[in-house]
Amino acid sequence: MSSQPLRSRRGRPPGRRPGAPDTRGEILAAARAQFAAHGYDGATIRGIATAAGVDPALVHHYFGTKERVFVAAMELPFVPADVTGAVIAGDQGGMGERLARLFVSVWGNPVTRAPFLALIRSALGHEMAATMLRQFVRGALLSPLASVLTAPDRELRIELCASQLIGLGLARYVIRIEPLASASDEEVIALVAPTLQRYLTAHLPGP
Amino acid sequence: MSSQPLRSRRGRPPGRRPGAPDTRGEILAAARAQFAAHGYDGATIRGIATAAGVDPALVHHYFGTKERVFVAAMELPFVPADVTGAVIAGDQGGMGERLARLFVSVWGNPVTRAPFLALIRSALGHEMAATMLRQFVRGALLSPLASVLTAPDRELRIELCASQLIGLGLARYVIRIEPLASASDEEVIALVAPTLQRYLTAHLPGP
Repeated sequence: MSSQPLRSRRGRPPGRRPGAPDTRGEILAAARAQFAAHGYDGATIRGIATAAGVDPALVHHYFGTKERVFVAAMELPFVPADVTGAVIAGDQGGMGERLARLFVSVWGNPVTRAPFLALIRSALGHEMAATMLRQFVRGALLSPLASVLTAPDRELRIELCASQLIGLGLARYVIRIEPLASASDEEVIALVAPTLQRYLTAHLPGP
Repeated sequence: MSSQPLRSRRGRPPGRRPGAPDTRGEILAAARAQFAAHGYDGATIRGIATAAGVDPALVHHYFGTKERVFVAAMELPFVPADVTGAVIAGDQGGMGERLARLFVSVWGNPVTRAPFLALIRSALGHEMAATMLRQFVRGALLSPLASVLTAPDRELRIELCASQLIGLGLARYVIRIEPLASASDEEVIALVAPTLQRYLTAHLPGP
């Protein structure tokens, strides 16, 4: 702990008072380490606070929930709960299109897709990163979306949607195969929305 | 070039004659460097031969085509032309299922999916690796499959299939979201084949 003030002093903006550590930054650094070591489900606000040498109340004060600590630590461009609501709201017959539209708007912008690409890249190389991504995606994105469906296989349905969207993101924005990469957003939404809608609400073959 | 015999001597199996360089290995190392530097389309048999210090005829002798040099250099588990034929053969109404079945059989085995994951991981981090993967996927996988379709938007159709399959691979075998990861191969094929079939042959909304 004796080296913490020194670590904080490096990279501090000019004019900051000596001795005032970057508490928020320390918490985020501790959070990244805790999520990497224990996965999303295993990491706790208390554990992050202990690793950062602060009181858990301070973590709550800065971020609120564990989901929001994760969003800040991974520099995600939005809090999932803030966007899943827009997909859920409205008739279920239009949910496929709303989901496609949200995805294209997030992944169409290099700044907002970058952190998701970084998470997927980590998951491709590290078992624990894959676990962390799985738990976070499941808890913060898939479960809220599945909660509005009534079919008993609703989790599988949302995951099939996720599989189409993850692949669309890689093919269109990373690998950039043509003509898919240059197709207009509206065309891509029109092409993919029926796939998502089928996964969400159509009759699917059982196991 | 004076260091080649020394480099080759390391890692040589016991009993190999001194002075006989690992020509095949030298060619593959040169090929990896050439593909990385110039992309799949930009690399040539001649350029690979020059970099390896051998005659182009020797590269042809060992590997035949540039596609096969790439397959060997990237340690891909099969030559794409050998498997696309099985998807193309037969009625077009069953092509979606044959494509899903091929994909699950390749990605269901950790050994055969590993090199593809490595390619995707590189593409996520390096612009030239993304270019290389795009050019190879397009030339070796997508174009042969598209060639049997008659619709004017056949390339887009195949790429939509690719987007579903890449995402299925990541969601099921890397991120491993449940219940998708534990669903049986037959169930996954039955769920995804109609999506692929729609992309391949159904009426799609135009641009």
